[in-house]
Amino acid sequence: MKAVEQFSQNLTKNIRADEDPSLIIHEFTDIIVSADGKKKETVKGKGELNCGISMILFEYLESYHVPTHFLRRASSSEMIVKGLEPIKFVVQMRNIAAGTLVTRLGLPEGTVLKHPVFEIYLDNEELGFPIISESHCYALGLALPEEIRDIFRMTNKVNAIMKSYLDRRDITLVDFRLHFGREEGVILISDSITPDTCRFWDKKTGRKLDRDVFGVKGGDIKVAYEEFLKRITNV
Amino acid sequence: MKAVEQFSQNLTKNIRADEDPSLIIHEFTDIIVSADGKKKETVKGKGELNCGISMILFEYLESYHVPTHFLRRASSSEMIVKGLEPIKFVVQMRNIAAGTLVTRLGLPEGTVLKHPVFEIYLDNEELGFPIISESHCYALGLALPEEIRDIFRMTNKVNAIMKSYLDRRDITLVDFRLHFGREEGVILISDSITPDTCRFWDKKTGRKLDRDVFGVKGGDIKVAYEEFLKRITNV
Repeated sequence: MKAVEQFSQNLTKNIRADEDPSLIIHEFTDIIVSADGKKKETVKGKGELNCGISMILFEYLESYHVPTHFLRRASSSEMIVKGLEPIKFVVQMRNIAAGTLVTRLGLPEGTVLKHPVFEIYLDNEELGFPIISESHCYALGLALPEEIRDIFRMTNKVNAIMKSYLDRRDITLVDFRLHFGREEGVILISDSITPDTCRFWDKKTGRKLDRDVFGVKGGDIKVAYEEFLKRITNV
Repeated sequence: MKAVEQFSQNLTKNIRADEDPSLIIHEFTDIIVSADGKKKETVKGKGELNCGISMILFEYLESYHVPTHFLRRASSSEMIVKGLEPIKFVVQMRNIAAGTLVTRLGLPEGTVLKHPVFEIYLDNEELGFPIISESHCYALGLALPEEIRDIFRMTNKVNAIMKSYLDRRDITLVDFRLHFGREEGVILISDSITPDTCRFWDKKTGRKLDRDVFGVKGGDIKVAYEEFLKRITNV
């Protein structure tokens, strides 16, 4: 049950062992990759912004007794987290139609969903992170039914907490993505919560404060992420 | 709540009104289309075979109190069914890995699944029948939670009944697909159950008795479907 498998790397983060073997250093890089994975660029300062954003959101969730792997910030772009046994799927919760809900299911972008949509994606880059259902999780041995129930309950709680927190800062929580891990049988939120993997829209203008501005004419990742960080910092 | 929307057509069936407006005539055509939709052919006699197969399976399920839309056979390749309000998704249940479980999720073909996998596909040809989850059903207004529960329960029951029925005939039920409709608030199985939409493998040799033989070297749809019909006819 060691956290060996969490010592993975992708372009937007570096995960490595701390001197204390039970801890992990999660470093946020300056690299940004488009949702389809086809475009990438370096945006100086993005890692630092994401580290700050993720820390604020994790600390806020912890204040509502949502367990996360976050322990403390280690440097401007690094945080120390607990070493967990990784759960090999990613959860996405959606309040408003965007992204694949538009392209895959034909909903017009911006449609307010009557019920939040809970999606599960297999955390397998080689297979292209395919969408899966609960019963695939059981068949693939990814989680137990009670773990899926916990994850569903936690995701709904995170949605309620973040939605109202952001709403007070004039930000609409369109959707967000969560990773999870196990620590002695208990489910914790892992990885990070940043505009790389969530959709945040300005409540009044609909202006995007997330990765979707990347590659769009006139879009400036740094300006968008700075604006988001500023809003969640000013209490 | 009229059954107007069920008056659809695709290549493998013709759906039209009976003289009695509450009834529908479901005609099985001789056309076969490959799973990816790219190849099609006419196989003389296939419609008749599928009509016979679907009738036997529907009658068998009814004998176990599984409600279906089937009423009676009208001709060699036609059956009379109830006009239902269609439910716009298709359910697939899998006992053994094949098809997209292999191509999408990387499971080796033939893997026996610890738990049957329950999948839902949006019944939308234009979007390519995308896979969806329960919460998409609610968000898209396709069904109520209690209806999904009924459908899940019925699908499991069909699996148990068909698996043991076919096993006694030396056939492995690899996976199958079901459509559903509503009649005054009650959920019924609709469409058809044929080797076009199920996977049936010979228990001993693994020989395929379904559409997967289409386009395969030496594969003969008519021989495969005839063999399947013969086995489920001999009691």
